[in-house]
Amino acid sequence: MAFQVLREDARTKARLGLLNTAHGSVKTPVFMDVGTLGTVKSLEPRDLRETGAQVVLGNTYHLMLRPGAEVVAAAGGLHRFMGWEGPILTDSGGFQVFSLAKMRRITEEGCRFNSHLDGHEFFLGPKESMEMQRVLGSDIAMVFDECLPYPCDRARAEKSVEQTIRWARRSLEEPHAEGQQVFGIVQGGVYDDLRRHCAEALVEIGFDGYAVGGVSVGEPEEAMYKAVEASVPFLPEDKPRYVMGLGVMHQMAECVARGVDMFDCVIPTRIARHGTAITRRGNVAIKAAKWAFDQGPVEEGCECYCCRNFSRSYVRHLINCGEILGLRLLTIHNVWALNRFMSEMRAAIADGTFTEWKEKTRKETAENEHGDVL
Amino acid sequence: MAFQVLREDARTKARLGLLNTAHGSVKTPVFMDVGTLGTVKSLEPRDLRETGAQVVLGNTYHLMLRPGAEVVAAAGGLHRFMGWEGPILTDSGGFQVFSLAKMRRITEEGCRFNSHLDGHEFFLGPKESMEMQRVLGSDIAMVFDECLPYPCDRARAEKSVEQTIRWARRSLEEPHAEGQQVFGIVQGGVYDDLRRHCAEALVEIGFDGYAVGGVSVGEPEEAMYKAVEASVPFLPEDKPRYVMGLGVMHQMAECVARGVDMFDCVIPTRIARHGTAITRRGNVAIKAAKWAFDQGPVEEGCECYCCRNFSRSYVRHLINCGEILGLRLLTIHNVWALNRFMSEMRAAIADGTFTEWKEKTRKETAENEHGDVL
Repeated sequence: MAFQVLREDARTKARLGLLNTAHGSVKTPVFMDVGTLGTVKSLEPRDLRETGAQVVLGNTYHLMLRPGAEVVAAAGGLHRFMGWEGPILTDSGGFQVFSLAKMRRITEEGCRFNSHLDGHEFFLGPKESMEMQRVLGSDIAMVFDECLPYPCDRARAEKSVEQTIRWARRSLEEPHAEGQQVFGIVQGGVYDDLRRHCAEALVEIGFDGYAVGGVSVGEPEEAMYKAVEASVPFLPEDKPRYVMGLGVMHQMAECVARGVDMFDCVIPTRIARHGTAITRRGNVAIKAAKWAFDQGPVEEGCECYCCRNFSRSYVRHLINCGEILGLRLLTIHNVWALNRFMSEMRAAIADGTFTEWKEKTRKETAENEHGDVL
Repeated sequence: MAFQVLREDARTKARLGLLNTAHGSVKTPVFMDVGTLGTVKSLEPRDLRETGAQVVLGNTYHLMLRPGAEVVAAAGGLHRFMGWEGPILTDSGGFQVFSLAKMRRITEEGCRFNSHLDGHEFFLGPKESMEMQRVLGSDIAMVFDECLPYPCDRARAEKSVEQTIRWARRSLEEPHAEGQQVFGIVQGGVYDDLRRHCAEALVEIGFDGYAVGGVSVGEPEEAMYKAVEASVPFLPEDKPRYVMGLGVMHQMAECVARGVDMFDCVIPTRIARHGTAITRRGNVAIKAAKWAFDQGPVEEGCECYCCRNFSRSYVRHLINCGEILGLRLLTIHNVWALNRFMSEMRAAIADGTFTEWKEKTRKETAENEHGDVL
């Protein structure tokens, strides 16, 4: 069985699970690290293992543009290309086509667009996306969908959801790699009945897992929880559920309490490059002058390579000089911090203390002693 | 004894040595990796150990500007600041003052200059340089000198050499860190008699080691060897000799044949950032289209982390996308390649085959199968 629910929390919908893939098992709830172009930025496979990463996410859109399908195919797929032997999930490219690409022309077959890099013309639809994901050889492929912006009026949302359902069906019908699972994506914007309709239609088709898409696109936090609540109850208990694009600690905990198993986000790597550390007491701008002489680690009590070996003073110096090692050390810390957070969350679900743990960590983060925001 | 000559080559002036410092022993001949701002760019201390690095070089000028003496002092010195427990050599800042800084005003006390970063005014002379190097706590401090440009007329060279000798004496008289060795620097440009005069004057003062400075500053290769030949014979047999700023394989081998023990250069890290790999058959531009599908390692037979795990195709993709991992992997390879080269050189001296080894490697590099140049 691809997905096993090992334990369900008594007071929330949180569950502990095991997602079995062609490249190993994944303990859920899980945060997945984004390796856009075949690298989690600045990290090597050995760093990913050390920081507790379980799944790497690859972006079909970006990899289609650079280096292109032929180059990855020559290596025998993305695992061998990037030297990562663990599970890989690939998105469909739908999100990037609708957010990055220029001059889109949408038809029933997909979307003709111009590369955000050089204007070169590409076509991406369910057929092309699944073909690219087959070449990448990911363990989990996502269906090609339209990610609705926020806000979005009802008429457009209705039309888009029907398109997403048709594309989901076509995506599943395309050939995929051996052992490759395919996940559907629930869209519907802020319209609860559209979310339910989309979820039920996808379940009717039947996928290996289900994502809630179109969240974390600028809507208020409450609207995000509402979208999750409007989708998850209509998804099967025995399949994994994945909220796309989410990587804020307390938001992930809230979604897990609503029955979600998987997350991904560029946050830990992106903000590291801007000199920000993720800690249990909020985000910390390491560039700040107050750390100039500080001999403590980036986060007290953290056991990552960065915190075990270097001071805030040193990391601040590196960041302020634009030294690559600075953003790399912060990336190591941030990835570790999120993976560690999920590991603690799983332990709390396992021993029946998830609710208490969630409240405790929420308060810690809310205290936000450093006074920094994202 | 700080320096021991373990074996002398029968046919050349090459020698195998052991340089003992407060942070461990260094096998010579040695290539030292440049960690300008307290980091060998993109590498961690554990990477340095893995790539066979023995000594890290810190730049007094750069560290004085950023983060400044107080910050390094707060950490207890450069070793603890950057987490490197092995030997550190610091230069005096003289080279940077005369090449990077703006609006210099030179007096007997040193040089008033404006930072190349923001124009902030600093003063650096023998007193200030030795004080900064004392704070850095390097195992080997270099005297403050004037590095002559190439070309340089005789009158200026004469005057400058006398200044360098006076500054060398003053540098030695300043307090230095416990266990810190101090090396003199032979200047004199292309004038053999000035080189000899400078060398003899420095030996008269008496240093723990001697560098040949003012080479690798744009002069023809033959002029460099000539400067080495005009300096080394007047330096003591029982002290280490160091050619500053040199990191080209066959040039290092030629200098070792002339009695040199130590080298440093930014080449391996700098060209890695531009996508160039150092190999035994010449430098290779990994960006080149011909590597797009190449599944071989960056260098055949190399056992570095990059070559054991990744293809030219993958590294090329990373470099072409501006991914940090690409330049980091090439940095790992290049540092490994130079350290490995020196390790083989030491083995050849040890077993009496240095001359044959030098000719063999020179031919290999000269073949330069990839047709790329530096």
